[in-house]
Amino acid sequence: MVSTILLAVPVLGILALIFMFIKSAGVSKLDPGNELMQRIGKNIADGAMAFLKAEYKVLAIFVVCVAAILGLSAALDSSEGTHWMISVSFIIGAICSALAGFIGMNVATKANIRTTQAARTSLGKALGVAFDGGAVMGLGVVGLGLLGLGLLFFLFSNQFGMGTEEEVLKVLSVLTGFSFGASSIALFARVGGGIYTKAADVGADLVGKVEAGIPEDHPLNPATIADNVGDNVGDVAGMGADLFESYVGSIIGTMVIGAGYMTITGFAGGEFSGLGAVLLPLVIAGIGIVASIIGTFFVRVKEGGDPQKALNTGELIAAVLFLAGTAGAVYTMIPAEYAVEGIGYTRWGVLYAIILGLAGGLGIGYITEYYTGTGTKPVQGIVDQSLTGAATNLIAGLAVGMRSTAYPIIVLCIAIMGSYYFAGLYGIGIAAVGMLANTGIQLAIDAYGPICDNAGGIAEMAGLPKEVRERTDQLDAVGNTTAAIGKGFAIGSAALTALVLFAAFMTTAQITTIDIANPYVTAGLFLGAMLPFLFSAFSMEAVGRAANDMIQEVRRQFNDIPELKAALEVMRREGHDTSKYSAADLATFNAADGKADYEKCVEISTQASIREMVMPGLIAVITPVVVGFAGGAEMLGGLLAGVTSAGVMMAIFQSNAGGAWDNAKKMFEEGASVQGTIYHKGSEPHKAAVVGDTVGDPFKDTSGPSLNILLKLMAVVSLVIAPFLV
Amino acid sequence: MVSTILLAVPVLGILALIFMFIKSAGVSKLDPGNELMQRIGKNIADGAMAFLKAEYKVLAIFVVCVAAILGLSAALDSSEGTHWMISVSFIIGAICSALAGFIGMNVATKANIRTTQAARTSLGKALGVAFDGGAVMGLGVVGLGLLGLGLLFFLFSNQFGMGTEEEVLKVLSVLTGFSFGASSIALFARVGGGIYTKAADVGADLVGKVEAGIPEDHPLNPATIADNVGDNVGDVAGMGADLFESYVGSIIGTMVIGAGYMTITGFAGGEFSGLGAVLLPLVIAGIGIVASIIGTFFVRVKEGGDPQKALNTGELIAAVLFLAGTAGAVYTMIPAEYAVEGIGYTRWGVLYAIILGLAGGLGIGYITEYYTGTGTKPVQGIVDQSLTGAATNLIAGLAVGMRSTAYPIIVLCIAIMGSYYFAGLYGIGIAAVGMLANTGIQLAIDAYGPICDNAGGIAEMAGLPKEVRERTDQLDAVGNTTAAIGKGFAIGSAALTALVLFAAFMTTAQITTIDIANPYVTAGLFLGAMLPFLFSAFSMEAVGRAANDMIQEVRRQFNDIPELKAALEVMRREGHDTSKYSAADLATFNAADGKADYEKCVEISTQASIREMVMPGLIAVITPVVVGFAGGAEMLGGLLAGVTSAGVMMAIFQSNAGGAWDNAKKMFEEGASVQGTIYHKGSEPHKAAVVGDTVGDPFKDTSGPSLNILLKLMAVVSLVIAPFLV
Repeated sequence: MVSTILLAVPVLGILALIFMFIKSAGVSKLDPGNELMQRIGKNIADGAMAFLKAEYKVLAIFVVCVAAILGLSAALDSSEGTHWMISVSFIIGAICSALAGFIGMNVATKANIRTTQAARTSLGKALGVAFDGGAVMGLGVVGLGLLGLGLLFFLFSNQFGMGTEEEVLKVLSVLTGFSFGASSIALFARVGGGIYTKAADVGADLVGKVEAGIPEDHPLNPATIADNVGDNVGDVAGMGADLFESYVGSIIGTMVIGAGYMTITGFAGGEFSGLGAVLLPLVIAGIGIVASIIGTFFVRVKEGGDPQKALNTGELIAAVLFLAGTAGAVYTMIPAEYAVEGIGYTRWGVLYAIILGLAGGLGIGYITEYYTGTGTKPVQGIVDQSLTGAATNLIAGLAVGMRSTAYPIIVLCIAIMGSYYFAGLYGIGIAAVGMLANTGIQLAIDAYGPICDNAGGIAEMAGLPKEVRERTDQLDAVGNTTAAIGKGFAIGSAALTALVLFAAFMTTAQITTIDIANPYVTAGLFLGAMLPFLFSAFSMEAVGRAANDMIQEVRRQFNDIPELKAALEVMRREGHDTSKYSAADLATFNAADGKADYEKCVEISTQASIREMVMPGLIAVITPVVVGFAGGAEMLGGLLAGVTSAGVMMAIFQSNAGGAWDNAKKMFEEGASVQGTIYHKGSEPHKAAVVGDTVGDPFKDTSGPSLNILLKLMAVVSLVIAPFLV
Repeated sequence: MVSTILLAVPVLGILALIFMFIKSAGVSKLDPGNELMQRIGKNIADGAMAFLKAEYKVLAIFVVCVAAILGLSAALDSSEGTHWMISVSFIIGAICSALAGFIGMNVATKANIRTTQAARTSLGKALGVAFDGGAVMGLGVVGLGLLGLGLLFFLFSNQFGMGTEEEVLKVLSVLTGFSFGASSIALFARVGGGIYTKAADVGADLVGKVEAGIPEDHPLNPATIADNVGDNVGDVAGMGADLFESYVGSIIGTMVIGAGYMTITGFAGGEFSGLGAVLLPLVIAGIGIVASIIGTFFVRVKEGGDPQKALNTGELIAAVLFLAGTAGAVYTMIPAEYAVEGIGYTRWGVLYAIILGLAGGLGIGYITEYYTGTGTKPVQGIVDQSLTGAATNLIAGLAVGMRSTAYPIIVLCIAIMGSYYFAGLYGIGIAAVGMLANTGIQLAIDAYGPICDNAGGIAEMAGLPKEVRERTDQLDAVGNTTAAIGKGFAIGSAALTALVLFAAFMTTAQITTIDIANPYVTAGLFLGAMLPFLFSAFSMEAVGRAANDMIQEVRRQFNDIPELKAALEVMRREGHDTSKYSAADLATFNAADGKADYEKCVEISTQASIREMVMPGLIAVITPVVVGFAGGAEMLGGLLAGVTSAGVMMAIFQSNAGGAWDNAKKMFEEGASVQGTIYHKGSEPHKAAVVGDTVGDPFKDTSGPSLNILLKLMAVVSLVIAPFLV
């Protein structure tokens, strides 16, 4: 039975990859649109690949160095729990994560123009293309994750054996390298991608929209391609790496906790040789893959239909299938009744914990939507406060972000305490796995958003008819909701994953309590709580510097390229509607087409993000090592508790404040009502809202999401060094 | 010896009060200036007193209710550790805190016009008046604090005895009511005062400066009196209540830890009947009072001298005297060598801990100054970023605030770990007492700031010659530095005080570990870390609402009062320099004098702040009670750890971001240089900086400082309910 599972797990990973290739091939075959669209698409794709190439070049050095350190210190260490092969899993984890990012970006930059093209004829077709593009990313992440984990687990269990708890812990300890590798790539992808996208966005907005007065995504704006590249780099590859890490981390962490169950009556011996609790996370992840694949087939919408409903249907079906399958797995692998340290549990407790995790993730997602969605009370409040200017808009947005931490945390606490009540510490782990098992379809829905966003931008740049942009906007509006939910989900799952890794760390470091009353732990707690602030400051300052470079470049182009300058003059004088231009004006305007030097802007964003991602990355990796070796395992535990608690708050605060500002601005663009008066784009309140949105950009797309990784990465690093701290 | 100390402590409190009365009488006797100045001064004083009256009316209800609940539940509880007299100490604590606020505000609103008047002749005289006004507040706080504590301790120790650890703990448990009472008043004073001052400030700025284009503190602005009242309400009374709470809380908390030393060899029996460690905090607080009083006499400056140096001299002398006296006290009261739970300590370890506390407080203060001071690198960075508009100014300020958490936390961690290393848990407590023992002179220097600020406003409103405003500005500039240092100091001391109360809570609740690995504790930690965000959101939204009321009112007056409208018209047309007005314009301008309805604005701020302070106050008091009784003492411990760690970060972040924005704006007003170009008041970058400053206002004066109290109050509430959780 055990060997069947050990084989089935990588096979399910391969299954996901097969479906991924099918979907990917399907997208590639579609009509990429007219020549201009293809040119734009190529610009975006080239820019995205240029970024990935530059990023991976730097990361390769990092990966080789860390792998060498890992391998050497494990080889030199005399303790039983370590082995140099951890560096192998580290490298494979890094490669899998990088590969998932590459595949996802590759298809996303194909799906964008094809979505635009499909939107010329039908909403349903466009949805299909965008969603299939997202599904490639989603299935790639879970497929590579489970394949990598499954193969390595198979390999190491043959090498080190699985007869005793010590052996299994050693297997898992070496396996943590995989999670560490994934985390490292994720951090740089999130931070680098986040800096990239916002440097481009802020630069494009400030000079383009605010100074030169040209619309977003206008081909005259030299930063517009970089902006669209950024959506792919940040929202597709970044989000993918983030969830890849949570996915892998929660599975490994729960397996470590499950290793403690090997000798417990009911688990010991039997069909699963005591490994029921160890293998369950892998099995339900596999079930999640099957459920996700089936779910993707139900995402269909007719013309005039509701894309949101289509996405919801797919997700719901996947969730139901997943729960049914999981109930069966729990029934088979967990004894009906068992006791851990004198406390009795039933098998259904494990299932309840999984349901709590799944429900908690969705709950946090929907709360996020409430605080950031167009037209909701909190966002309307920001709209109202925009009447008295940028300052009150900002105060309102900051307050909404801070206030929005309350309910998600209450949901998270219920999930933590509930799953612990039902199934002990293992319950928290399995809840995290449950939350993440449907990552396949969840991420498909997430990645769909930026593809639609890109599609809209391409429609604008290619000067397609209005109804195309309207269709992509309709898809994009849904994408914003799913993005909000996805962000909430990513934060919630990161928090639970960090807790699981935390518990695994304690198991591996062989400490049983982390006493906050111990002043060294208190100091660790303070230091840890400080890091999300420092880290956010770094990434925001990085965006500021990079955006400044971009602003200078765009201004330079507007000044130095005569055709651009002339066209801007026409636009300033005659407005944006080219159909009202005189023949001479139109000629001037058309002469500027393609004169903007997009590549230079892409290069600036790339260089800046690579340069700026190094420092925060090193802090995240080095801090736990220093604290662990200088202050001991318990102080390191305090550090993790601090970084997790404060990190989750800062992530929610920043993501939601940014999301709320964004939608407050959008409400003005659609005509927002305040005290009976309607305010439009270009009104003073709208200008105030644009300031809020610009501040929110690095919040929601750089510093906020990076924190998810920070807390997971620090937990993984601690877990990796735990055997040395014994 | 014990009875001598028990008598000496309240006597030293009375000594502080005597000096306070002497200084207060000295200030009152001075020349209050011309009739107009007196009228302005009376308006401010009346407004301040109206606020205090309205606030205390609400607080009286709160105090009576809580006292009844406290008394009843203690009377009904059968456990040994509680007694109904805790309600008596609660009421006395509340009265002492309220009285300290009243006295401080009373003299501050007298000192302001007298400082202006003194500034007409000499810088040195003006400094003297402002500092004496501040000293009244400082001495009032420490005097009432030590007198109240000393008398109640004397009373309760007679009632319950001091022979055993249990008896002493019971005395101290009843005494915690005093700290609780002080905390409650402090919370409402900080939150209410913070909302008041910023509603007035934001309202005055947005409509007055931005919309109508009139300078700050101009008599035509109806909100200007409310703005000046706010400085007193927030910065004098609020800061006083804050430090009163830290002062009292750290002393009581350390006494509780010291009670555990009664039976330790070296302490047991002897001259101090085993009470050496219990009484030491009271004794060094008394030494601090004497040192502070002497220090105040050294704050003197000649014309052309440096006010900063004068303040530093006073503080330095007080610190040296304090350390000398404290060394003596430690030598007398602590055995040369002793062991706690098998770990050996020396008496000098206690002194080192005190020095670490004192140095840590100053260190955090100076770091704060670095991140917020005019012309420093971080603030220059914000100035630079203002060139590209409000959005980049805001991103830069937020980043500076977040980044500024790093060094203070490192200093705090060194102080925590160092004092623990030198003297165990008691070391952390005594470090907090050491940090706060010189509160007398520290608070004098803090309160000096808003007095000078007021004095400048009065000089402006009364149309005094330029050199007067220049002198008050010189004093005010120093005041801004001291305010920054004072805020850092308040946060640092709040953190240490909360830790001390935390340790005392554990002693009283009879728990020895708070294990973060316990999921209930983890949930508590998350909930606790969320509260500072929720609390900040509440207070910022409150400021938003209150400022909106104010804005509406000021706009209404500008529209409805014809004289104001006409004068604004003149000013808009001819500029601010009245000497250039034509005779007709001057007549129109003068006709508007005194026509603004200041009282209405004062009333709006008062009503709004009273209305808005209730909700956050209740959250702070009720949450620990609910968590403690529903989740148990250990989960409550997690809650406290969360609220303390995240609260300290949010307090530093918000205070420093606000301070940095404020000074970035000031740099433009004095002519800021960016890339070789000088930008002045009214330039686009200056306008961007004004937006940042407005956002920073509630950060630094409402939500940030309120968090100090939140974390202390929640710790005190936990300490109060601890006996019921056993």
